[in-house]
Amino acid sequence: MTAARSETGDPFLLTPGPLTTSASVKRAMVHDWGSRDAGFMRINREVLDALVEVAGGRGTHVAVGMQGSGTFAVEAMLTSFVPRSGKVAILINGAYGQRARKVCQVAGRAHVALETPEDTPPDLVALERLLASDASVTHVFAVHCETTSGILNPIAGIAAIVAGAGRRLLIDSMSAFGALPIDAAAVRYDALAASSNKCLEGVPGMGFVICREEALRETRGNATTLVLDLLEQHEAMTKTGQWRFTPPIHVIVALHQAIQEFRAEGGQPGRGGRYGQNARILIDGMRALGFETLLPDALQAPIIVTFRMPADPKFQFQRFYDGLKDRGYVIYPGKLTVADSFRIGCIGRLGAAEMRGALAAVREVLGELGVTACAPAAAA
Amino acid sequence: MTAARSETGDPFLLTPGPLTTSASVKRAMVHDWGSRDAGFMRINREVLDALVEVAGGRGTHVAVGMQGSGTFAVEAMLTSFVPRSGKVAILINGAYGQRARKVCQVAGRAHVALETPEDTPPDLVALERLLASDASVTHVFAVHCETTSGILNPIAGIAAIVAGAGRRLLIDSMSAFGALPIDAAAVRYDALAASSNKCLEGVPGMGFVICREEALRETRGNATTLVLDLLEQHEAMTKTGQWRFTPPIHVIVALHQAIQEFRAEGGQPGRGGRYGQNARILIDGMRALGFETLLPDALQAPIIVTFRMPADPKFQFQRFYDGLKDRGYVIYPGKLTVADSFRIGCIGRLGAAEMRGALAAVREVLGELGVTACAPAAAA
Repeated sequence: MTAARSETGDPFLLTPGPLTTSASVKRAMVHDWGSRDAGFMRINREVLDALVEVAGGRGTHVAVGMQGSGTFAVEAMLTSFVPRSGKVAILINGAYGQRARKVCQVAGRAHVALETPEDTPPDLVALERLLASDASVTHVFAVHCETTSGILNPIAGIAAIVAGAGRRLLIDSMSAFGALPIDAAAVRYDALAASSNKCLEGVPGMGFVICREEALRETRGNATTLVLDLLEQHEAMTKTGQWRFTPPIHVIVALHQAIQEFRAEGGQPGRGGRYGQNARILIDGMRALGFETLLPDALQAPIIVTFRMPADPKFQFQRFYDGLKDRGYVIYPGKLTVADSFRIGCIGRLGAAEMRGALAAVREVLGELGVTACAPAAAA
Repeated sequence: MTAARSETGDPFLLTPGPLTTSASVKRAMVHDWGSRDAGFMRINREVLDALVEVAGGRGTHVAVGMQGSGTFAVEAMLTSFVPRSGKVAILINGAYGQRARKVCQVAGRAHVALETPEDTPPDLVALERLLASDASVTHVFAVHCETTSGILNPIAGIAAIVAGAGRRLLIDSMSAFGALPIDAAAVRYDALAASSNKCLEGVPGMGFVICREEALRETRGNATTLVLDLLEQHEAMTKTGQWRFTPPIHVIVALHQAIQEFRAEGGQPGRGGRYGQNARILIDGMRALGFETLLPDALQAPIIVTFRMPADPKFQFQRFYDGLKDRGYVIYPGKLTVADSFRIGCIGRLGAAEMRGALAAVREVLGELGVTACAPAAAA
């Protein structure tokens, strides 16, 4: 048995991020910079400008960096944009919608949830009805791609309804931004949160929020924490060219390199194209082995794919996982409540060769386990 | 003119952190890990255990990691430990005491400030009096070493007064932890915040809070943000061995390597000893050139030294700074309100050779500027 390895000798991460990054992205971190260094300040400016560019928001939107994981950016977005007198309608069909609800509970923001099962898109009619009937709702929160299942939520449709009802939209585009199109000129939102270590293929440690500048300016006094105040974060950067508090310098420099490589790949169409091909190879190959995807293709984002657990008792997930890991491919456990499942990611520095390698490893491990049929319980 | 360079070709950072780290610490980042990877989980456990060990808190204290900069850890500490019904007495003699006050203002925690000038330690008699007269004060917040001036605050004396008055102590030991002794068995506190990129010589992106475990358990329900809730962060790590939200993986792995090198240097006595020698060389050399330190030696921590700005009009700080930077030494502007000044740090992967190199560069640049006397205005 040979174990596949990346250029830096690591297993391939078929996970929703942190993910496999290029060797050059990681090597960019082998330096020291002072946080007030002119070269480092230029890197920051270029990163933030590039993020606005990717969002299609030049002239109307700004990017505000936030130390920490993606959830830090999401909590910063919710608590900076939703005033204490506001109320958020949260569209939930997975763990990240649930998490936004928990942020609102802990941070004391009134909210109402519109929940659908994990394999079902948000109910747009119910959203329209809610906004018509509850005048106290000021904001809507939606997840672009729910990593829980890998479902692509209809963000443009949601945005149209929210704008039509004169409300404000906040988007968690964590696992989609950079790979799936979301053009700020076409999809109206106040803020959109994402992070360094997803489709932009940087390392983890920094989130960011793309903000409609006019809306950001209206948020003064909303924040209920010092560190997560997006307006203060933005004003400090604009005024001094420096982060308000010590930035994760190496993470930012890695993201700067990752953005060069993103551009070299043709930006969002190129990146999304490769991920789409990865997903196609993965899904076709797994179906050929008898696995079933949770989602129909029409709802599937090319980010991470949920497979139903085979009914065959010889299929023991931990042994399957370990067998793949031994061969150099790290997959991801399931997080669903609606079905027993596991997930395989399509993002990061992976291409057709790695996806085919992963499929070959799946075949080998199934053989080792003596599994011949991969149909799930319901269909078995 | 030759420019001094570190092993990775970078200027030396004579700053209060982010600072010069070893090449091996940075090279540890040139890999990918999944956040649920067994090897990465072991690294986390070892880092957190080592932090408790450095604190002298084995069996009584736990270390809770926090994504973001040191201020994220300080805000997490204040908002997790101080309930909404609590009140904090904040000892202020610099920017970091001020920042704690701002956290309390934004996060809605009642507080009272005991302020002394930036070159003056906290007034212990006033603290004792306050605690005796204001029964509503539940917590005291103190800064161990105020980076604003470089002053070493009398943390053991403060802790004794707070314990004697039956109140709880929260410490910002950001720029001291690892280099200056603070033994959890001797100095009673509920929580102490520090970060990866100061005296432990890691890269920025992660803070941590050393918590008296019993006190941490009492904090349930206090937090007013999801991401900064230390008890939930601790419980998730204890239960799953994983971070609650995506960790800054590369930063943690770098800190793990930095801790091996910290141990190899003899832990706190070794690290503090080297910094003490760095400070001695720096102060003696600068005084020999006519510079004056803001602080008398008895108040000076061996972390960062504040020098009064020379009165000679030929001494233009920007040219002085640039001249040093051209020679490979990055110093730090002043942050004082009490005196015009600049700062030079003694921490990071720097030893006697680098401090002497910096002094030689200072002499050269003074010659270039035509400055012959470095006495400050007051003494000129």
